[in-house]
Amino acid sequence: MAEKETQTVEETKAEQEPIADAEHDSDEAVEAEAEVVESKEEQFEAQINELNNRLLRTQADYDNFRRRSREEKEAAAKYRSQVVIESLLPVLDNFERALLVNPESDETKSLLQGMEMVYRQLQDTLKNEGVAVIETEGQTFDPHLHQAVMQVEEDGFESGQIVEELQKGYKLKDRVLRPAMVKVNA
Amino acid sequence: MAEKETQTVEETKAEQEPIADAEHDSDEAVEAEAEVVESKEEQFEAQINELNNRLLRTQADYDNFRRRSREEKEAAAKYRSQVVIESLLPVLDNFERALLVNPESDETKSLLQGMEMVYRQLQDTLKNEGVAVIETEGQTFDPHLHQAVMQVEEDGFESGQIVEELQKGYKLKDRVLRPAMVKVNA
Repeated sequence: MAEKETQTVEETKAEQEPIADAEHDSDEAVEAEAEVVESKEEQFEAQINELNNRLLRTQADYDNFRRRSREEKEAAAKYRSQVVIESLLPVLDNFERALLVNPESDETKSLLQGMEMVYRQLQDTLKNEGVAVIETEGQTFDPHLHQAVMQVEEDGFESGQIVEELQKGYKLKDRVLRPAMVKVNA
Repeated sequence: MAEKETQTVEETKAEQEPIADAEHDSDEAVEAEAEVVESKEEQFEAQINELNNRLLRTQADYDNFRRRSREEKEAAAKYRSQVVIESLLPVLDNFERALLVNPESDETKSLLQGMEMVYRQLQDTLKNEGVAVIETEGQTFDPHLHQAVMQVEEDGFESGQIVEELQKGYKLKDRVLRPAMVKVNA
């Protein structure tokens, strides 16, 4: 009877250690039975521990993924316009150059005024999206914002002060899209 | 001895059913022991099932979240420029209007040519980002693309054909940013 029970227990749990000696009296059988229970319990507990650990790890991974995902989404939203704005910078450059005329006739003056309004509207639209022109003239040279393409020795300027801007630089929020090209005093 | 073992098993698993009658011979004790094992085993198995189910649900939730997250990311990337481009449409409108002059002097002609080049560069830049002008004149009216602001009876046009465009419409990829405003033949 004791052995039959041991068999049943063995069948339900395949990995457990087989009991080598099946010949004993019933008190010994109970002891063996208890050992089997201990061992099965340990196995169950090990399995439960393992499952609990996997569950905790999966939940932690999920939480981390959610947090990273939200951060990436925020960054993507913040700089969503970067690509198109970067591609618009040469348009802005050419627009500015085209506006550099000294009109003689009223006809040309009128067209120029209309175009200056369009240019300001374009600038305002980009400003609303977070685009800012990098300040240059009179500023101290900052390698994060400015690119020195010439060094001069000019009176009335301190060492490292920007003398002239050669090409406008732009930022999108806190990101530099293009540094300003400048002439710096030595 | 049998009873002592039963006690130990009871101590390790508080929720199990208490064995009411502790008076039996050792064979009966083994049977009772087996019942306790059954019940404990069932409890362990129920706990393992529950943990397995929670693990599977958490993994399924995680997988769904990852899939949705990737889809959202792709959609966000595809239409990332939508906001800034929509805000640029009035600039394009005004730019076009400002170009509608018939220059008399060479000075004005020269400025106009420069400005037309800037306008084309702006158009090309937006085109590269996936912006397209909605076709109108000669097309059949399509409520998804066109907004009819006038209905006319014009010779030489079929019923429902677009006679004239009053304001340009724009698409970003497969998304209509602004329908074209049109005059439609009745």
